[in-house]
Amino acid sequence: MLKVIVNGCFGKMGKVLTRCIQEDEELELVCGVSQPPIEDASFNVYSKMSEVVESCDVIIDFSHHTALDDVLGYALKTKTPLVIATTGFNNEELAKIQEASKSIPVFHSSNMSLGVNVLLKLVKKATKMLQGFDIEVIEKHHNKKVDAPSGTAIMIANAIKEVMPTLENNYGRYGREAKRTENEIGIHAIRGGTIVGEHDAIFAGHDEIVELRHTAQSKDIFAKGAIVAAKYLANKDAGYYNMDDILN
Amino acid sequence: MLKVIVNGCFGKMGKVLTRCIQEDEELELVCGVSQPPIEDASFNVYSKMSEVVESCDVIIDFSHHTALDDVLGYALKTKTPLVIATTGFNNEELAKIQEASKSIPVFHSSNMSLGVNVLLKLVKKATKMLQGFDIEVIEKHHNKKVDAPSGTAIMIANAIKEVMPTLENNYGRYGREAKRTENEIGIHAIRGGTIVGEHDAIFAGHDEIVELRHTAQSKDIFAKGAIVAAKYLANKDAGYYNMDDILN
Amino acid sequence: MLKVIVNGCFGKMGKVLTRCIQEDEELELVCGVSQPPIEDASFNVYSKMSEVVESCDVIIDFSHHTALDDVLGYALKTKTPLVIATTGFNNEELAKIQEASKSIPVFHSSNMSLGVNVLLKLVKKATKMLQGFDIEVIEKHHNKKVDAPSGTAIMIANAIKEVMPTLENNYGRYGREAKRTENEIGIHAIRGGTIVGEHDAIFAGHDEIVELRHTAQSKDIFAKGAIVAAKYLANKDAGYYNMDDILN
Amino acid sequence: MLKVIVNGCFGKMGKVLTRCIQEDEELELVCGVSQPPIEDASFNVYSKMSEVVESCDVIIDFSHHTALDDVLGYALKTKTPLVIATTGFNNEELAKIQEASKSIPVFHSSNMSLGVNVLLKLVKKATKMLQGFDIEVIEKHHNKKVDAPSGTAIMIANAIKEVMPTLENNYGRYGREAKRTENEIGIHAIRGGTIVGEHDAIFAGHDEIVELRHTAQSKDIFAKGAIVAAKYLANKDAGYYNMDDILN
Repeated sequence: MLKVIVNGCFGKMGKVLTRCIQEDEELELVCGVSQPPIEDASFNVYSKMSEVVESCDVIIDFSHHTALDDVLGYALKTKTPLVIATTGFNNEELAKIQEASKSIPVFHSSNMSLGVNVLLKLVKKATKMLQGFDIEVIEKHHNKKVDAPSGTAIMIANAIKEVMPTLENNYGRYGREAKRTENEIGIHAIRGGTIVGEHDAIFAGHDEIVELRHTAQSKDIFAKGAIVAAKYLANKDAGYYNMDDILN
Repeated sequence: MLKVIVNGCFGKMGKVLTRCIQEDEELELVCGVSQPPIEDASFNVYSKMSEVVESCDVIIDFSHHTALDDVLGYALKTKTPLVIATTGFNNEELAKIQEASKSIPVFHSSNMSLGVNVLLKLVKKATKMLQGFDIEVIEKHHNKKVDAPSGTAIMIANAIKEVMPTLENNYGRYGREAKRTENEIGIHAIRGGTIVGEHDAIFAGHDEIVELRHTAQSKDIFAKGAIVAAKYLANKDAGYYNMDDILN
Repeated sequence: MLKVIVNGCFGKMGKVLTRCIQEDEELELVCGVSQPPIEDASFNVYSKMSEVVESCDVIIDFSHHTALDDVLGYALKTKTPLVIATTGFNNEELAKIQEASKSIPVFHSSNMSLGVNVLLKLVKKATKMLQGFDIEVIEKHHNKKVDAPSGTAIMIANAIKEVMPTLENNYGRYGREAKRTENEIGIHAIRGGTIVGEHDAIFAGHDEIVELRHTAQSKDIFAKGAIVAAKYLANKDAGYYNMDDILN
Repeated sequence: MLKVIVNGCFGKMGKVLTRCIQEDEELELVCGVSQPPIEDASFNVYSKMSEVVESCDVIIDFSHHTALDDVLGYALKTKTPLVIATTGFNNEELAKIQEASKSIPVFHSSNMSLGVNVLLKLVKKATKMLQGFDIEVIEKHHNKKVDAPSGTAIMIANAIKEVMPTLENNYGRYGREAKRTENEIGIHAIRGGTIVGEHDAIFAGHDEIVELRHTAQSKDIFAKGAIVAAKYLANKDAGYYNMDDILN
């Protein structure tokens, strides 16, 4: 049994994660950490990592970037591997994560879904092989989503531009003179109902199309991906790891 | 054998149409009409309908709106049914078509594809039944297309608005505060390679999606639709007909 | 507030339904009925409809066909409208439902999803309009599903055959001489992962394709559809109703 | 200008190829070779490669496996690079091709579409990364296609099995007890209308799906792929090449 502590256990993703850990026969949820208000839970809950008295094999962090010092403090002191799924870090914070990874194994990714990371790798590979094809990205999400396009759509466009740096994003085409130029990636944000998330990269060439698509059915995929990362990280040496290390 | 005259026989669609007529065992191509330059052809070609000496069972017009008087003149004089697939008429010309339809059968549609017309009817029906669902339209075309969105995408949006008149088109969503409102139809124009034409109407509700899609593989579908219309019209009474009459 | 009693409140669908009723501001869950084992619940639970002492505006039945007499007894005695979402009735039971509908309003459907019922109507309409097109049905479900194809795929094929009675189902094409005949509907059952349910009717003609698709994201859609039916039925006259009455 | 001779210039693919060569500004069609009946052509036509008096930079062979000796004879004698797109070779013939590749550059592939070859590579990569996902293959073709599934669908299944050798193909699922097993690849052959060709590999996991799709709009893609191969091969050393060499 791999013993896990969850930092940020009552956030939207934290709740999904603790449920997924409890359903996983190879994992034991040692305790959770959450800023107040503390909710009822079937496990011990602390308000800070520094207050935790238990030890574990790996920490999964789905909290807030401002809680970084607290979780790094515990991980470094106890030499515990750390999976960081929190987003929104500034450069100073990112540097602290890098520094910590010299002493302990740290896994860090801004999208924990295995499938999305696979999609990103395939998109990069397809871009290399399909020179001269026009690339467009379509993403679909529910009607409550505030930003457009999605962060993942931007990650896809960036993966394409790692291979083809001259391309530029084009959000929405409209008008009588709206002909596509060779150096654009059209990005289209569809919104409707309760769609969880779909990302589609279209490579259109002369009389043929290659299409790569990821469909998410629930937020579980981010929790499951973090768990895959946790199992991967548990007995690694100190270092900075991400999904590429697992997928290669 | 149904005898057909094609007005506009050397335009992009006219060439497809004459080929399709010659491949159809129930049809005989009597002659074609085209403004100079006249090209080599396996059938008689005139430069104006008024010069044609043959008679036929039905005329198919894929020419130019400025040639309307010429084709109407021949059709009215000879009492010949007329299929009009030409687009771009102004109000005065549209009135002339209506007037002619009091004396002869006239079939008039700005999109002759059977499938697109079926899609339009299904979209209208779905809009009525799926109250409260969010509707988005995605269209895909080749990278040489100048305008965005396509005329057919606009026809789809108009069909939706016949049922839900308060909806408004939204072309391209972008930004940190780009949340969907209840009264919009998102319309998205994908461009790439040599895609002939695809139109997708998405109805997204709570935990379910209904999707209606039309895919065109070649321009033949417009010629085939005009031929279906010609066969339908050949022994009709005077009147103004369109695809709805065939599909009902 | 519409007052609702749920028969079969602890079955897989009953649990979803009671949750959806409690989330709906226009509805009040009066009580539930379930064969033992009775679970903890935030509402009164009886083991039989005949024991219920409360009255309500409409009953929703997601129980078992053997419980029909019990629920009909209550509904007829109290003159309460009844939504029947239970499946598996034999002919004798179906006759009892018809008989009851002479005294009270009864809504009966074997698939309560609004979207699936819309799909069925659109498929029938498309079949009428797209004469000569080849029709194929693809359905996708999770890897635990035992039967293939799904009941809904069969409903789609039956809807097609109402219009084209000479067509026959073909399950799986394989071999060196497996050419499609004109009078078949190909039905294909894809299985994988946790796919909730997708049904796709493909109408393929000369150079064009019309595709109608329904995607389910959760079982909520069956509960939501039953709730729509309940609201529709609440102040209707005695009679036998189904989704067609709502959708027309 | 790269000078090309086409062996098999009047076959279905030969005609597409000669047209594509004539449309390509970097290529010059020197002559064609075809078994009688010889058709009218805008280029010289011989009935055997051994009769050709012209020389060229590269030969493209879209003929018949029984014509192998003839084309190899010419290529070896004149030290001309050879692109072989013909299929159906027996082991003896395959050995001759290998032997010839010791003296001249030979490019050999049973599917010349760039996109299909890219799909195959991506499918292999996805299979490696998505351990535990269920894989299904859907292919769609026109209603005249005799065999099912398509050769390309089999190529996709074989690519998957290079990575996961324990998997087995399952063609068509049907019945009350048709639950998916862990070690199968479901392969589904959809047939309808004039669909040119679509291949879809679906990787379905827990709450997420990755989908890789290739759509062909015309046979041009096989000719274009052969031309890409010809340009690649023109100044290579002796050796045996295939699409992997171009795509890596």
